[in-house]
Amino acid sequence: MPSPPRPTRAGLLANPRSDRVRAVRALSRRAVRHRQGLFLVEGPQGVREAVHHRPDLVRDVYVTPAAAQRYDDLLARADAAHLPVHEVTDEVLAALGDEGASVSPQGLVAVCRTETATLESVLARAPRLLCVCAQVRDPGNAGTVLRAADAAGADAVVLTEGSVDVFSPKVVRSTAGSLFHLPVVTGVGAAEAVDAVRAAGLAVHAADGAGDRLLGALDLSAPHAWLMGNEAWGLPTELRARCDDVVRVPIHGLAESLNLAMAATVCLYASAGAQHPVGPA
Amino acid sequence: MPSPPRPTRAGLLANPRSDRVRAVRALSRRAVRHRQGLFLVEGPQGVREAVHHRPDLVRDVYVTPAAAQRYDDLLARADAAHLPVHEVTDEVLAALGDEGASVSPQGLVAVCRTETATLESVLARAPRLLCVCAQVRDPGNAGTVLRAADAAGADAVVLTEGSVDVFSPKVVRSTAGSLFHLPVVTGVGAAEAVDAVRAAGLAVHAADGAGDRLLGALDLSAPHAWLMGNEAWGLPTELRARCDDVVRVPIHGLAESLNLAMAATVCLYASAGAQHPVGPA
Repeated sequence: MPSPPRPTRAGLLANPRSDRVRAVRALSRRAVRHRQGLFLVEGPQGVREAVHHRPDLVRDVYVTPAAAQRYDDLLARADAAHLPVHEVTDEVLAALGDEGASVSPQGLVAVCRTETATLESVLARAPRLLCVCAQVRDPGNAGTVLRAADAAGADAVVLTEGSVDVFSPKVVRSTAGSLFHLPVVTGVGAAEAVDAVRAAGLAVHAADGAGDRLLGALDLSAPHAWLMGNEAWGLPTELRARCDDVVRVPIHGLAESLNLAMAATVCLYASAGAQHPVGPA
Repeated sequence: MPSPPRPTRAGLLANPRSDRVRAVRALSRRAVRHRQGLFLVEGPQGVREAVHHRPDLVRDVYVTPAAAQRYDDLLARADAAHLPVHEVTDEVLAALGDEGASVSPQGLVAVCRTETATLESVLARAPRLLCVCAQVRDPGNAGTVLRAADAAGADAVVLTEGSVDVFSPKVVRSTAGSLFHLPVVTGVGAAEAVDAVRAAGLAVHAADGAGDRLLGALDLSAPHAWLMGNEAWGLPTELRARCDDVVRVPIHGLAESLNLAMAATVCLYASAGAQHPVGPA
């Protein structure tokens, strides 16, 4: 059966200096995102995950005619969800996006509402695996940790006060769509987060290269959270002291350490292995 | 006891347009590295690991007066190894480095000889864990895989023909010094590498999101190698067919996949866990 005709779009947006284009472009700035409660999602992967998993957050989709053909399935889904899809020239598409991007949005950009979860709402759903990042600063690290948490089946990610803005274009790109897969809590203090998570009955394991327990010695089958420190200064002593234990990923070679994203990935996958055991094949 | 006086250095190099400075700077280009057999190491972490672990590869160390004070221990080690250390102005130091760098070399740069290992020499030492990257193209991924392999206690890393140049400034930075910790084999074909590794008695596990075996179902205690595919196109069918099995890292949430560096980290740490078991603490 041929697919039903696409809803007629309004005329092609062709003016890269229009107020609408300027307003979208301005979302590359944190203050503007904060004020407007909106952020940019660039490229088919991110836009697809938004449209599929959180259409309620999508305010507008912008697409070039070439990308509209190429990502026909994605736009059909957007149409079915009654999302406003605007066709734009290549020039307008380029003007919408993040100037600092090293990758092309491939003709597709969405504007979404910034929505975060509260720690209370996350804890009320009896989570089994959480990842708390204390003041993560690097956008690539934050995004990769979100993606790893998603893949490991975590129930939510907490980025504490002082962390990079999770809605910055670089973080959004690094999450590869995972931002739309699991709740993200922001703006909570690290100590407050650790205390609340423990009060909800989860163990909190601080990950630190100087930890006195080895990752492999932990029983990770029960509900728990990982607390990851900042890229440069790790976890303050007083924060480590609030946790159930301080755990290190063993280093078997001569490497000094793992970076934050790698350490989080190893810890989260150790948890996934314990919480979703596999029998021998 | 006060430390012995530092050997007197030649006069401060102050001309950022000198032939020497131009020659070092040119090492940012692959063709020049290949022709000269030299590469750049920027920043204290990389220079420290070179000086400590592979002083035989270090041809020159360049340092600003401020960095010379700050990294006194490192320079003492360089002096003890009779390495040529040159004091340079801030301007010269900036002119030596990679223009595209997003991080500062912090006043310290070294020029080292490019040295790779042969696959034969690696296999002759009865390795227990290897990582073979088939056509890895992203410098950050290549460097991170090297660092993960080092941390997981791998015996060597193979970057097959068509991979990014392991001596490019971005890869060198991403390895965080691990480039000087374990042998790196380059320039070998992927099929040839898989066949040689298997002929040496190691199992070869291809890592692929479509693999029919789950990571957790593998016995990784015996000697083996991981074969990781390219970031965009993964592993060609004919290459997967040459391996003992095709293994996938389970995805428990909604994430589509892990990126190459994350997948390699998870696989290599699964191997490390099997080869270096930890009793309950």
